[in-house]
Amino acid sequence: MNTTQEQLAPVLAEGGAELTRLLDCTEARLAEVARGHGPALARHAEGTLAAGGKRLRPLLVFLCGGGERALPAAAAVELLHMATLVHDDVLDRAELRRGRPTVFADGGRPAATATGDLLFSRAFAELASTGSADAVGALSRASSALARGELLQRADAWSEQVTPERYRERCELKTASLFEAACRLGAIFGAQPATAETLGCFGERIGLAFQMLDDVLDVSGPTERTGKPRGADLLDGTVTLPLILARRSDHELRLLDLRASAATQRDAEALCERIAVTGALEDARREALTHVHEAKAALGRLDLPARRRRALELVADGVVERYA
Amino acid sequence: MNTTQEQLAPVLAEGGAELTRLLDCTEARLAEVARGHGPALARHAEGTLAAGGKRLRPLLVFLCGGGERALPAAAAVELLHMATLVHDDVLDRAELRRGRPTVFADGGRPAATATGDLLFSRAFAELASTGSADAVGALSRASSALARGELLQRADAWSEQVTPERYRERCELKTASLFEAACRLGAIFGAQPATAETLGCFGERIGLAFQMLDDVLDVSGPTERTGKPRGADLLDGTVTLPLILARRSDHELRLLDLRASAATQRDAEALCERIAVTGALEDARREALTHVHEAKAALGRLDLPARRRRALELVADGVVERYA
Repeated sequence: MNTTQEQLAPVLAEGGAELTRLLDCTEARLAEVARGHGPALARHAEGTLAAGGKRLRPLLVFLCGGGERALPAAAAVELLHMATLVHDDVLDRAELRRGRPTVFADGGRPAATATGDLLFSRAFAELASTGSADAVGALSRASSALARGELLQRADAWSEQVTPERYRERCELKTASLFEAACRLGAIFGAQPATAETLGCFGERIGLAFQMLDDVLDVSGPTERTGKPRGADLLDGTVTLPLILARRSDHELRLLDLRASAATQRDAEALCERIAVTGALEDARREALTHVHEAKAALGRLDLPARRRRALELVADGVVERYA
Repeated sequence: MNTTQEQLAPVLAEGGAELTRLLDCTEARLAEVARGHGPALARHAEGTLAAGGKRLRPLLVFLCGGGERALPAAAAVELLHMATLVHDDVLDRAELRRGRPTVFADGGRPAATATGDLLFSRAFAELASTGSADAVGALSRASSALARGELLQRADAWSEQVTPERYRERCELKTASLFEAACRLGAIFGAQPATAETLGCFGERIGLAFQMLDDVLDVSGPTERTGKPRGADLLDGTVTLPLILARRSDHELRLLDLRASAATQRDAEALCERIAVTGALEDARREALTHVHEAKAALGRLDLPARRRRALELVADGVVERYA
């Protein structure tokens, strides 16, 4: 059992045998999609699949009400997530992801771009097979949001002007939107459309917290936990909440040109230290916890079966514990 | 009136005022999509839109039966086509398309990759708005095929082993599939699903001819017609039918290492001449004409209104005339 599975063990225990079976079926379906569309996709997608991941988004589909009928939706949200990872790795020229060579490293830029496009397409093909245009609508809204978030992030690179509001908007687009869609899809296929709005809100809040805590971890380290060098965001010009908040109390940081001041790994680490002493990491963590709190409060507005409610609360707590 | 509009004038005349109105509405809808998803997409997509194009795929949607209800489908096929162009330009590092800077040239690789992803997403969002999961299925099959075709093309780069069958498979995936989908979508929204198979076959055949003649033109030139240097495919290692056929009759060509022999523009032009003298261009053209003939024969199996049939035949002829 790896760390990820350990973290999810309490959730799986609440979900019972049926949840584990549905997640196994999702895994089998993802492998089928990877194999079923030509040898090039098979090679590239199987590597991406084998690299694993928490399958947090399919898990949310099932915990939000989706049963057997929601299997294509669970596969679709993970395929869309994989597609964005493959494209992100091309843009970041990332050679490794979770300790394995990326599609970019293995097949080069053209193959990785086309592989991402193919995974995108298969996500929509999976959902279309359910016959639910509502579901396709929810996924295409999330998919558009992810791409807009990416555009926003690239537009904001190195900028001194990024406000906390703008940063939150970016997190909503590039991360929270897919968590939200996963929860909505669960409600749609669970034939409880009345819960879609509230469960969508739950997903959006934990997605927001997830991204914020990820950004805190990039500054706080340690690298043994993150698997990447400290300050990687600063090095590629991505302005996140810790820096934005630190700039408010540290005047010199406010005037600092990020491009010049985080040019090397050593510079980036020094900048991380400087951000840390302002207390900005605690402030950012506190905001993330507020979002987790709001997510759980949203659950309180629904009449959910006790075990499903408990499992969803555990997922929300898991987002925090991952970074505790 | 530009050349493109001149070429389409006879088709538009057959289609009458209603066809022109539907194409104008499609144009307006594309502009709305470009403007409605943040300033970054607006800038990049408006440039791509303004660069024009024949809107051949939306035209096929309407000529295959789609009326007012098919407007989202017409916009969707063009958005998907635009998405692939934007991604292709990233992979080819193309600075210009139809005389205007590409998104890649204007915004760089990350912005262009994200813009392509956003256009992909909006294509599916448009179709989802119609409530037809059948239509989404048709588009996602085409979208997967386009990406598979791209993967195949990159896998076959520089290879001496590409057979005519493999080449045809690639053309079907990367070009004909979207022509086919456009025709199928027209039939679906025209509430004549019984015609979808045959009209899809029509679209697939003219798509195949379209790509083959494009590949012939790359070798034959002249550059004033193509707007790109002669032998551009050879320079980037794309093995097309003229080279494959020429290798059958010219033994030295068969043994030739493309990477070494088409390293410069001058090399590529010399290679084009050598291909031309084998008669391979005429053979490839002849095959393309066979596909156009089959496309028209497929129309004969349907009981179409005379003007629509005539307009579809004109589109098929236009594919050939474009290269005459």
